[in-house]
Parts: sequence; C-alpha cells; structure tokens
Amino acid sequence: MLKVIRSSFLDFIDDPFYTSEAASVRYLEDGLLVIENGKIKDFGTYEQLQEKYAGIDAIAYPDKLIMPGFIDTHIHYPQTAMMAAYGEQLLEWLSKYTFPTEAKFKDKNYAAAIATVFLDELLKNGTTTALVFAAVFPESVDAFFEEAERRNLRMIAGKVMMNRNAPDFLLDTAQSSYDETKALIEKWHQKGRLLYAVTPRFAITSTDEQLDLAGKLLSEFPDVYLHTHLSENVNEVQFVAELFPNSKGYLDVYDQAGLVKEKSIFAHGVQLTEQEFKRLSETKSAISFCPTSNLFLGSGLFKLHQAKSTETPVKVGLGTDIGAGTSFSLLQTANEAYKVVQLQGEKLSSFKALFLATLGGARALSLEDKLGNFEIGKEADFIVLDPKATPAMALRNADFPVKTLEDIADKAFAIMIMGDDRTIEVTYIMGEIAYQSI
Amino acid sequence: MLKVIRSSFLDFIDDPFYTSEAASVRYLEDGLLVIENGKIKDFGTYEQLQEKYAGIDAIAYPDKLIMPGFIDTHIHYPQTAMMAAYGEQLLEWLSKYTFPTEAKFKDKNYAAAIATVFLDELLKNGTTTALVFAAVFPESVDAFFEEAERRNLRMIAGKVMMNRNAPDFLLDTAQSSYDETKALIEKWHQKGRLLYAVTPRFAITSTDEQLDLAGKLLSEFPDVYLHTHLSENVNEVQFVAELFPNSKGYLDVYDQAGLVKEKSIFAHGVQLTEQEFKRLSETKSAISFCPTSNLFLGSGLFKLHQAKSTETPVKVGLGTDIGAGTSFSLLQTANEAYKVVQLQGEKLSSFKALFLATLGGARALSLEDKLGNFEIGKEADFIVLDPKATPAMALRNADFPVKTLEDIADKAFAIMIMGDDRTIEVTYIMGEIAYQSI
Repeated sequence: MLKVIRSSFLDFIDDPFYTSEAASVRYLEDGLLVIENGKIKDFGTYEQLQEKYAGIDAIAYPDKLIMPGFIDTHIHYPQTAMMAAYGEQLLEWLSKYTFPTEAKFKDKNYAAAIATVFLDELLKNGTTTALVFAAVFPESVDAFFEEAERRNLRMIAGKVMMNRNAPDFLLDTAQSSYDETKALIEKWHQKGRLLYAVTPRFAITSTDEQLDLAGKLLSEFPDVYLHTHLSENVNEVQFVAELFPNSKGYLDVYDQAGLVKEKSIFAHGVQLTEQEFKRLSETKSAISFCPTSNLFLGSGLFKLHQAKSTETPVKVGLGTDIGAGTSFSLLQTANEAYKVVQLQGEKLSSFKALFLATLGGARALSLEDKLGNFEIGKEADFIVLDPKATPAMALRNADFPVKTLEDIADKAFAIMIMGDDRTIEVTYIMGEIAYQSI
Repeated sequence: MLKVIRSSFLDFIDDPFYTSEAASVRYLEDGLLVIENGKIKDFGTYEQLQEKYAGIDAIAYPDKLIMPGFIDTHIHYPQTAMMAAYGEQLLEWLSKYTFPTEAKFKDKNYAAAIATVFLDELLKNGTTTALVFAAVFPESVDAFFEEAERRNLRMIAGKVMMNRNAPDFLLDTAQSSYDETKALIEKWHQKGRLLYAVTPRFAITSTDEQLDLAGKLLSEFPDVYLHTHLSENVNEVQFVAELFPNSKGYLDVYDQAGLVKEKSIFAHGVQLTEQEFKRLSETKSAISFCPTSNLFLGSGLFKLHQAKSTETPVKVGLGTDIGAGTSFSLLQTANEAYKVVQLQGEKLSSFKALFLATLGGARALSLEDKLGNFEIGKEADFIVLDPKATPAMALRNADFPVKTLEDIADKAFAIMIMGDDRTIEVTYIMGEIAYQSI
C-alpha cells in the first residue's frame, strides 16, 4: 500500500564540504514523499507528482520541515542514566563514573529497561540510526538488539572488548571477547535491520592480543563494523604511547591490528596528527565528531576543517556520545559543533552541519545505499520538524516556510541552534510512525 | 496575609569560590518559606517552623526544588527575534545582523511587542531579574520598563548610547544621549522595582565626549548603574586601541571617563589582561560571564578562575547575552560555563555555577540586600524546579529528593547540565505566581 506525505523537505544529495551548497542541497518547499513497503518509492515536488498520486490522500504536514532521520555515529546506551557526571576529564571520568555504571549491565533485565528508555530518547530526538556501544557483557548486547529489533530500527552495536586497565568485574579476556563477539555476530549481524560492530573500548583497555583478535574477527566477517575511541584526550594519547612503545602513534596501534579500514568508525580524534588524518583518509575510515562530549570532558576542539580538507578527506559523522555528551539531540550537537568550529575561526553552515547529521552520517557508516536522504529505494526513516516548536523559535522562524535556498539555510540554522527534542514532531521508521510528540 | 511554601530549598549564604561549599550552601530537604507582602518573612526547616505556622495551609511542592530566581547580568531585549544569526564573529555580526534589527525599535509598538515576548521568555526560564540593553531609541526603554512595571519585576535597563561607527539611523550624539539618558533616569530609576543603567554600547561606538558625558551622568546620579561591553573579541580590543591611542588598554578607556566603579557591569572580559582584572577588583566592578555567546561568536574562553582568584577577586555573574547567546536559560548557560571552564583544565561545581546564577548575580548587581537568597526581609522572587522534568532527567535524578550536601550537589549538577526552561515549573515574583508551566 502506498503512503503519500506532503510537506516541505530538506535533504542532501552530495557533500557540501566539497561541492557547492546549491549542488548538494535539495529543498522542496512543497514536496511529496511516496512510500511503499517501508521504502521510498517516489520523491519530488507536489507539482511534479500530484497527478501521478492523485488517487491517494496525502498525509500533510503544513508549515513543517521533513528531513531524513538523524544518524548518531557514536553513543553508549549503558550510560543513559549517568549523563552529567561531574568534574573529571576522560580517564578519571571512566574510573569514577562509567565503570561502576556499566557493571549493572550484567543484569539483562536492567539492560533491557535502559535499552527501552534509550531508544525512546533516540526516537524522540529524531535519531533513527545509531552506532552504539553496549557493555562488556553479551547480555547487554542481546537486550539492546532485542529492543531495537522489536522496533524495526536500523542499529549497529557491539559488545565492549576490554581485558585490562579497568576493574576486574568489567574485564573479559582476549579469548572470551573473541568467542563472545563471534557468537553475537552470528546471532545478530544482518538480522533484519541490525548490524554488528566489533567494539574494543579503546587501546588502553585492550592488550595487543585482544586487538589482534578483533582484527581476526574483522577478517573473518568482512562486512561487520569496527567501532572504538581514538585520540580524545591528551593524557589518554600519552598513556597509549607508554602502553604500546612499538607503535608509531595512537592510530597505528589499531592499524597494526588490522582495525583501520572502511567501516571502521573512530570516536573523537581531537588530538590527531596530520599523518593520522592522512591515514584515515586513505583507509576510508570515519571519525565521529562529538562536540558536546569534547567540551564536557574538556578534551579539546576537533579540527573539522582538517578532517574535511580536500587533500586528505576523511568521512565524518556527528555523535552525541551519551553519557559524556550532554544531549541526545543531534540539533543540540550541531549547535555545539558550530561553536567548536567558531572557536577555531572557521565556519559551519547549517547545510554542512545537517549533512553531517544525515547523509554524512550514513556515509560514515557505509549506509548511504540505504539511508541518509530521500533517494528512491532507500529506507523510509524520516522526521517531521517543527521550525516554530517554541515561542522563541516561532518568533525567529515566523516566515517559515520559505522559498529560496538562502532562506532555508537561515531557518535551518535557527533550527540547529535553538532546537532540541521539542523540534521533532514525528519520527517515522520504515514509513510507520514510531514517535509522535502530541 | 501570610503565604507558606513547603518544598526542598537550595540557596547560598556566601561565595563558594572563597568559602567552603559546606559553609556557603544552604540545603533544606524539607523546608518552609514564609512570605508576607511580597517579602520573605521566615525561612527554615519544616521541623523548626511547622508549629509557628501550623494555622496556615502550606502550598506544597513535593519532589521539587525551590531556588532564588535566576539573575541574568547581561542581555539585549531588542535581539530576541534575531537569535541564531549565522557565521560571523563580533564586529561583522553587529554590522550584518544586530544593527538592522535594532533599527526597528524606533517603533514603540514593535518594541512593546518584543518586550512582552522577552519578559515571557525570562519568566519561563526562571529569570526574575536582568540587566538589559534596550536600543538607542528612548522609546525602546519606555516600552521595556512599562512592561516590566506591569509585571512588578526588578529589572535594570538603559538606552544604548552610540554616536559613531554604526549606521546613521542608529546614532545619537554625545549631547542627545546625555539629555535622553538623564530624562529616562528621572522617569524610571527607582520607580517601583525598576532601576536604570547608563549604557554606552562599547568603546568603539562612543566618542571620548560621549563616554565623558556617561561619566558625568554617573556622578550626577551616583546610584545608577553602568552597563557596557568589554574585551570580548581580539579584533575589537585592537580596534579600541587604535581608536583611543591615549589609553593604556580597553578598560582604561572606560576608567578615564569615570565609568569603572561599583555598580559598573562589564559584559564578557574574555580578553582581559592581568592588570585589568586587578583594576576591576580594586574598583569593585563586575563582569558578566556569557559562555553561550562567547562560544557562539568564537570570542574565546573567559578565565573564570582568574576573575575569582583570591588575589584579585572580581564580582562575576552569568549572562545569557541574547541574541549572541543561544539560550534564555541560565541552566543552559551554566552548562556552557562548565564546558568553558573544563576546556581550561579547571572545575566548576554545581554550587559555584548556581551561586553565580543567584547570589553571585545579585552581588554583581549590588542587589544582595534585596535578592539572591532566602534571607528574611528579601524580595520573594523564586522558582520551583522539577529535577525530573524530562524522561532523561527523571532517570538521572530518580532518587531526588536527597538528604546530603554531596547528593544535592550531584542532583544540582544534573539539573544544570540537562535542564532548560522545562525544568522551571513555577516562577514567583514578589510572592505571586508569574509563570506556571502547566
């Protein structure tokens, strides 16, 4: 059965960091999105398509803006209840707050309860796909994927691998992490919309042997993901250098284990060297830029302009990094991304930021064949935004809907600076309503 | 008639930057606040006061936290509709966005309409007192004060003085700014709860003559305020040095005109020198720290630890600086203040941040005899916060209300990092409900 949606639409058909904005943005002031069996069957202006679908009652969202669902490229679901943990930078924050919290995820019932709240929050914030850290316990992965499967979400997740430099109650071994991950891949990867990521926490909490086994898993299952942390904090980078004296740098630790490749997503990269940006570029790896987290932990300012340079282009997505991040909203995350870029004397337009949150995220996750914009054949995960969601936004965006690209750039900027979960009115998953604000 | 409020209460009786937190914070898990004729008549634990007020039905807010109303020490009401203006740093942002917007405030009806929305936003965000820039037009001051008076708010505002380096349609002259300001002081200062601030925009837009006349006004009306901008942006500081070759620095420009004294509030101070911090300290002047604005315009990181040093202590309040600021919420502003401090490797506890938003703000504005905490005799402007205002906060603060100072520090931190206008359930002005979320 066909479903026809009528509203204003904004998506990206190319990367505005490399192509002109006019050539990469697609804005239909009055458009139709046609869905069949959860996928996009047609997309165009109302004028173009109205006759073709004249027999079907359109679901209309007047004065709203429809975008592809947001993609969060780095988030920890076990940290949902420990947001806003006070006063530490990365390594101390992990010991003091994170590890005790993650210990609770041995209990599958607790894990399932948090997974439910977590996925509710994602949908409420317009995030339809995420790359997710579970905890070290396989139960935590099962709990997450069961809930994601129930909701028919395209989610990527994995069991944390960590066999040193953490409390005993959180440690696996190199061999157990290999065995458990392998079993989880066989159980969940490609089950419905679910995908698996081999997930060593970071170099500090894995031995060479564990990292090598992570690499072995990637070669045995070449289409699974690699998801880890990289060069977030100065002390972390230094500790990695001490732990791996034979490496040429932090990224090289992963590289030696065979973990740096397409479908490898590295969170943060705040402290990366020029050489490391180059290596990420040539391996087609991706970085998840997590501005609220980088500011909250005082890690520093990610060099987005260097990652998105023409010389060594690296795939970049946005990440909330809950629980070090301070908001589930990718709009709020874009707000902070803008500030991080401003502090470096650069600019981040609304189109560039929203590209990172949609098609850019899909490309970072090698999912651009399935998600990220309204191309025909893609999965119909999309969100209805209200540009006038609060009185202050209603004043700022009083003249929405607008006609020109320049005007929609301006309105979209107001949405990303002033918006939050309240801006998301409806979230559709595979063409079905999965969240509705009212 | 007496009004008795029962809930949990948090306020400050001293400055936690200089005194131990235990000695500066007052937390009553179960307290009573007694109000008579808009002022605080009594305050203490329920146990202490229940018998004394047994005959009066208490208004109870179970599971909520009551704090003194927030104080915003720097905000521009004419910029309410121009939040989230894209892509520029300070000087270009002023020319491109701010000046055209402020031109509209020659029309008193427009000014009145914006003043209404603006004050609605303040109350919705729990801000009960603010130090406010109007526009250059006296009509804009009248419109603002009329609306503030109608609501019985304690507000400080002033007409912008600016006679150069801006479009003609926004310029006054040294003499007209003196005359108009004088007339406005006589009309509004000390009228009910209203107070006046002599408000040269900043050194760049005033001649020596205008600054001298601002100084003359301060000597003629010794209890009015001085409100201006100071050392926000590197290019601004350099331009000031060119414009005032005989000054020893940016602050010295104001000092030579007699503008640096108690009741002088300088917004930003991001680029201040050690010598300038010292001068602000010895003159008992205050700085308004505006973190969302400083990040949004890429101005830099305010050195809060230097301002609050023991050697040269400077009074500091928080400012949203709408429209360069990105939120009307002083909770969101405290969130960003935390991040600015973290990026400098320092810490900002919830108590310190919330002190800045309440008693610290009152001290910065020399209003600590009237506002800022629940001392008997002060004006009863206060707010009821819901520590579980959103699902994510409900999870994080599940065990609120709590008993110990350590626990309330933690819950307050979650409130300031995750909270926004939704956290404000009720705003009381002089003991009367002025805003209610439901």
